[in-house]
Amino acid sequence: MSVEREISDLLAARSAAVAAHDVEGVMQQVADDIVSFDVGIPLVQAGGAAVRQRLEAWFAGYDGPIGFELRDLAIRGEDNIAFSYALVYVSGRLKSGDPVSMWVRSTIGWMRRSGRWMAVHEHMSDPMDFETGMARTDLEPES
Amino acid sequence: MSVEREISDLLAARSAAVAAHDVEGVMQQVADDIVSFDVGIPLVQAGGAAVRQRLEAWFAGYDGPIGFELRDLAIRGEDNIAFSYALVYVSGRLKSGDPVSMWVRSTIGWMRRSGRWMAVHEHMSDPMDFETGMARTDLEPES
Repeated sequence: MSVEREISDLLAARSAAVAAHDVEGVMQQVADDIVSFDVGIPLVQAGGAAVRQRLEAWFAGYDGPIGFELRDLAIRGEDNIAFSYALVYVSGRLKSGDPVSMWVRSTIGWMRRSGRWMAVHEHMSDPMDFETGMARTDLEPES
Repeated sequence: MSVEREISDLLAARSAAVAAHDVEGVMQQVADDIVSFDVGIPLVQAGGAAVRQRLEAWFAGYDGPIGFELRDLAIRGEDNIAFSYALVYVSGRLKSGDPVSMWVRSTIGWMRRSGRWMAVHEHMSDPMDFETGMARTDLEPES
């Protein structure tokens, strides 16, 4: 199977795991030594335990499935190193009743270890509006 | 030279070019087909021309050199694919007189084309504080 196909399958599995609030499903493809730059604070989350804690808190805030749909996915890889990036549409309903509907930018760095691709770096964000200092969660990709 | 050394040298050259407001110096290592997720809006900047325009606007806003210092740099690469990530301390003084002092997260995807490493993807951001909706430019890495 090509690297592109392997990573694409992992990303599809990740979206399905997020939808189902399946922490273990996501963690299966997260390296213990991951360095994560997440959408929310802090600046850096280092290590699988920190990522697991963030996933648990994230999933706990939602009532029902979390939409996590990738668009404009690009994957570049060779034997044991790859990176992927995409826009992600995050949607659902919080336990507070508030709907969530936002696009985020996602970049993942992958390494094949003992034959398995693992995310060793992740960067997710929304851009800042320098005029207001706000993170812009309301932007949509150009069609 | 190892991939790590090659990319590290490129990143040092990039920081020097940013300090000197040298648009061409940065663009030498930016692919024409780059897809950039920048610190500021919009969501996506596609192509070298868009990145060049952003650099010109960025540099024009500063009075004097722009500090662009990398910390906790990690580089993973093999023959023709690599990715790097780091925290970047951006500093200087705007033409308005306001000082700039902020950390941002940086991830770059690299491809070696015709023997030269080029940035084909870049992702820079600050994390959001979900309580306030603000992008947090005041966070510092843990020492």
